[in-house]
Amino acid sequence: MLSFVNDYSEGAHEKLLQRLVETNRESLDGYGADRYSESAKQKIRAACACDRADVYFLAGGTQTNQVVIDALLDKYEGVVAASTGHIHTHEAGAVEHTGHKILEIPHKEGKLIPDALEKYLKAFYQDENHEHMVFPGMVYISHPTEYGTLYTKQELQRLSEICGEYAVPLYMDGARLGYGLACPDTDVTLPDVAEYCDVFYIGGTKVGALCGEAVVFTKENTPRHFVNLLKKHGALLAKGRLPGIQFDALFTDGLYLELGRHAIRMAGILRKAFEEKGYTFYIQSPTNQLFIVLENGQMERLKEKVRFSFWEKYDDGHTVVRFATSWATEERAVRELTALL
Amino acid sequence: MLSFVNDYSEGAHEKLLQRLVETNRESLDGYGADRYSESAKQKIRAACACDRADVYFLAGGTQTNQVVIDALLDKYEGVVAASTGHIHTHEAGAVEHTGHKILEIPHKEGKLIPDALEKYLKAFYQDENHEHMVFPGMVYISHPTEYGTLYTKQELQRLSEICGEYAVPLYMDGARLGYGLACPDTDVTLPDVAEYCDVFYIGGTKVGALCGEAVVFTKENTPRHFVNLLKKHGALLAKGRLPGIQFDALFTDGLYLELGRHAIRMAGILRKAFEEKGYTFYIQSPTNQLFIVLENGQMERLKEKVRFSFWEKYDDGHTVVRFATSWATEERAVRELTALL
Amino acid sequence: MLSFVNDYSEGAHEKLLQRLVETNRESLDGYGADRYSESAKQKIRAACACDRADVYFLAGGTQTNQVVIDALLDKYEGVVAASTGHIHTHEAGAVEHTGHKILEIPHKEGKLIPDALEKYLKAFYQDENHEHMVFPGMVYISHPTEYGTLYTKQELQRLSEICGEYAVPLYMDGARLGYGLACPDTDVTLPDVAEYCDVFYIGGTKVGALCGEAVVFTKENTPRHFVNLLKKHGALLAKGRLPGIQFDALFTDGLYLELGRHAIRMAGILRKAFEEKGYTFYIQSPTNQLFIVLENGQMERLKEKVRFSFWEKYDDGHTVVRFATSWATEERAVRELTALL
Amino acid sequence: MLSFVNDYSEGAHEKLLQRLVETNRESLDGYGADRYSESAKQKIRAACACDRADVYFLAGGTQTNQVVIDALLDKYEGVVAASTGHIHTHEAGAVEHTGHKILEIPHKEGKLIPDALEKYLKAFYQDENHEHMVFPGMVYISHPTEYGTLYTKQELQRLSEICGEYAVPLYMDGARLGYGLACPDTDVTLPDVAEYCDVFYIGGTKVGALCGEAVVFTKENTPRHFVNLLKKHGALLAKGRLPGIQFDALFTDGLYLELGRHAIRMAGILRKAFEEKGYTFYIQSPTNQLFIVLENGQMERLKEKVRFSFWEKYDDGHTVVRFATSWATEERAVRELTALL
Repeated sequence: MLSFVNDYSEGAHEKLLQRLVETNRESLDGYGADRYSESAKQKIRAACACDRADVYFLAGGTQTNQVVIDALLDKYEGVVAASTGHIHTHEAGAVEHTGHKILEIPHKEGKLIPDALEKYLKAFYQDENHEHMVFPGMVYISHPTEYGTLYTKQELQRLSEICGEYAVPLYMDGARLGYGLACPDTDVTLPDVAEYCDVFYIGGTKVGALCGEAVVFTKENTPRHFVNLLKKHGALLAKGRLPGIQFDALFTDGLYLELGRHAIRMAGILRKAFEEKGYTFYIQSPTNQLFIVLENGQMERLKEKVRFSFWEKYDDGHTVVRFATSWATEERAVRELTALL
Repeated sequence: MLSFVNDYSEGAHEKLLQRLVETNRESLDGYGADRYSESAKQKIRAACACDRADVYFLAGGTQTNQVVIDALLDKYEGVVAASTGHIHTHEAGAVEHTGHKILEIPHKEGKLIPDALEKYLKAFYQDENHEHMVFPGMVYISHPTEYGTLYTKQELQRLSEICGEYAVPLYMDGARLGYGLACPDTDVTLPDVAEYCDVFYIGGTKVGALCGEAVVFTKENTPRHFVNLLKKHGALLAKGRLPGIQFDALFTDGLYLELGRHAIRMAGILRKAFEEKGYTFYIQSPTNQLFIVLENGQMERLKEKVRFSFWEKYDDGHTVVRFATSWATEERAVRELTALL
Repeated sequence: MLSFVNDYSEGAHEKLLQRLVETNRESLDGYGADRYSESAKQKIRAACACDRADVYFLAGGTQTNQVVIDALLDKYEGVVAASTGHIHTHEAGAVEHTGHKILEIPHKEGKLIPDALEKYLKAFYQDENHEHMVFPGMVYISHPTEYGTLYTKQELQRLSEICGEYAVPLYMDGARLGYGLACPDTDVTLPDVAEYCDVFYIGGTKVGALCGEAVVFTKENTPRHFVNLLKKHGALLAKGRLPGIQFDALFTDGLYLELGRHAIRMAGILRKAFEEKGYTFYIQSPTNQLFIVLENGQMERLKEKVRFSFWEKYDDGHTVVRFATSWATEERAVRELTALL
Repeated sequence: MLSFVNDYSEGAHEKLLQRLVETNRESLDGYGADRYSESAKQKIRAACACDRADVYFLAGGTQTNQVVIDALLDKYEGVVAASTGHIHTHEAGAVEHTGHKILEIPHKEGKLIPDALEKYLKAFYQDENHEHMVFPGMVYISHPTEYGTLYTKQELQRLSEICGEYAVPLYMDGARLGYGLACPDTDVTLPDVAEYCDVFYIGGTKVGALCGEAVVFTKENTPRHFVNLLKKHGALLAKGRLPGIQFDALFTDGLYLELGRHAIRMAGILRKAFEEKGYTFYIQSPTNQLFIVLENGQMERLKEKVRFSFWEKYDDGHTVVRFATSWATEERAVRELTALL
């Protein structure tokens, strides 16, 4: 059975496994204080062109969003997000579990539009009842977004300016950041992300690691006692070496971007095949996730030979489904799938 | 200065004060176990035509919403509300503070539409990812709504049926319930509310009491150890006599509805004046709150002689404002206001 | 039936009721922005000899403890309290409900001993694992304590110094503060409390009000957007006039202390009677609560004629019970009780 | 430098790594629905002699305690633990973060004593004020305890009976369960644990895995929508294969117990050396952690050649330190350490 069901179906890139094996019997400090975590942090700082970046490694994406948002918000604040934001739709209320509201604003192709953000923030402070409302305390975006779309550099810059004017941090969920950065059409680099965001995370779980996300605070703005907050959230790994060694490998010799580029190339072949065969795209995504509208009968037939994801109901006769490529997708599998279309 | 700013500007109806004075030196049990609270509960049960109703008295509306919603939801559940719902817009995140998400669906004139609710619930369970989403665990409505509009009996019945099908309780925020029940155009009675809702509260603070809301569980569905939950939320009044005696008076000789009718009559006079003078209504509200679109200059001039509430910005030149009547509004004041229009 | 069951069995002192009646029809701003609340705040500032004091009125004691503690603690902090502290034993987990731990240290007659506090704080920072523990973020005491005992001025001063050294605020729960201040043996005045505590509350519910506690921040240390935090906790009263008018009356012509003195005088008569008749005191409390060890049979007989509180089991044959006097206790009742002993 | 600092300094047992490598490119379902997780669950059920056991894999110990306790407690409940319990002392308030109180009772050598538990539960329900207190909703123990001590089978049985009488689940934190089960002096087996506990976890992180703890519900008592609750707590791993494959290896051919026995044998050699050289044991621990009282100068000298853990201050001149062996401890290192004593 072919699988395009998601980008976290395989284990880890072999170079990561190899490093885990090589370092296995070394006795290292716990809780992220080991030398490999330190090395990984240094390499991430270099890749971000941000010397003062403060880096922490967590196990998964929802956990990272939950801890970072809870740590950065004040008690009277919530987080602004697009209505399609992952934290708002598919994280089982993890943010609200920490006591904070998600302040939803409309999206465009999964993106939070700068003008809409500015309008929202302005209107909030103009509202005479705002002392009875949840204050906007930070802004959440993901890159790529929930629909695989990408912000332009100009859009990021503009979001950053607006956040600056209202003194709220801009936070980027980079669960699939590698696939965004590797996209040939993007003008956004990792240093751009570090410049425009106050905090973001570099996703490992979906880009070649067994587990692990690297949170980067870029403006000397790490919350006080952040390690304690990680512990309090159940997010502090005793063996910090596990993500540390993997990120050290991911940021050696450009592996992280290389993995991203592979997935993007595989998606490109597939996208072209869908186009040529006249399939309907639900949305134009330039990254590793393709959202296709299938007639339900067609969907059932395809399911017999290939695994993909239900995304949402389109209408009574059609369904939006997702095909995802990844660092692990083999070109042979892509060719087999295109032959089936 | 004339005041139509809201319906909680004055103290309490004199009959309530009188009973507080008359009973003042009686030594009564604390925490709502006194004889007047018991009498009030009995009278509320009778007024609801619901013998098995279980009644508790709390101090205020946001507190009541917070405690009831937190007590009824399971850990994996959130509360469905219209996008304009009071809990979603003007309670400073009190529901999320308890760890639960508000699941927003579109409104129509402030009301949650049965079809939209059904569609939402159906789609939730059809979504193959719903195990990663917040489960709809109860439905919140207010009556009157945030825009002063009212559900019809048929709408309530329909909402109740849908909730029944999905086994989620229907909860009505009745902060201004007295004004809704007293409306001449409504076909909804207090027994109807008790029949169709699983839990609701009868607002006292805005309908003639110094403070106090009466929570009514109608289906032998009081959460276990509810008094303990009240305490845990800081919502258990040591002197339960304070709301108890007041509600005992409010539900003696039909006073509660009488106060409602007075406010509705005053609003009627005012509504007619606005209509006759050609003012623009933002929404057609049949209860004690009138939402008017004023040109900004006109608004400033009116502000010099009468107090009313900012509601929301309409456009750059106009503002939506609210004029509220109440149990305490004097007809003389209404006449003076109409003369100013 | 005689009642010494607690100090919140009656309504309110008549002067408070009278003011509620006199001001009843005045149209006042909501949420504590009315003129009587302002007047009460001014009088409290004067009584505290603390011009910069910032005062807020809440409805009840548990609510006040919950909101103040949650508002003052940082996310990685807990509150230090004596093992017998009210928040630790009898508030249904209201503090933990906000996500914060109570850090228990041993008590002496209900009091938190300065040396024990200092030892605890010192040991915390010496513990090499403290980054994995809950940081002590504030110190909670009550005055009178859970056992009716009082701190001396020197003890308060010492607690204040220790808190200052460790930069954690000292918070006093003054649910029965009036009875403490009115005690003839105390050397602690309200200005002392304001000087040594960073925040405290003046209890109204147990000292002559229908409801209401006045929170006083004494060091220009009010948490940001405190009104919003009150709302978020469901603790913001729409009719702020209710506690405002009552506190305005309590702090007019020294009424608050007068009520305290009355209860203390009544307790004095009763204490002397218990002593003369050879009863065993569980603890020597100088305030309005007397803790007596009764043989169980004797307890049952007494229960037939007078109401008092179960406190705790002493041994299989004896029980600790509490007799409380209050602002409302009549001397006649005290005489009748002493005749029964 | 020799290291006895803890039991999570090395990576994973080579058999686990080997299986991760062998299965690496297999495309597997996410979130724990893969075949290796299923196989691991089946093997754990067999090892527990408990067919109906329901098993979930989480990443770490604090996270597991937090999620399980929050999922099992009702809103009005807290968790009973010994005053030395790990959740009470060294988890940064992770349990309180979920809104629940830890109800502390005295310990004996780190163990929760059945009689003390029974006394506590009995007293709680006898207390006439218990409706204002936190209800005991479950009982937490760890095995081995925070001091490396072990319950006897009889003690476990007795705790289980008491919990049964009061209808509260018994939960065992088995972070180091392998070291407890492998102890030659114990009469407690894994099937015993499954019989007497309602839920427990089998620690992987400290017993040979890169990460991972296996939560076992033994009485068909898995909380509803537990996967959703995991997600909500940020504890659901996308690549559930990571712990699944490791636990599959740990429970193949008795590896888990074999790793435990090795650490216990290493600790035995070390214990004997400490005894022979006249060192003072702080507590008699039969498992892999040895708690020694060192004179401070002696401690500093030893620190130059070997790493161990600060435990707590003993007195001004002495310190309690911990030496831990593990699955990875080499006998050569133990010999070198004994030579230094």
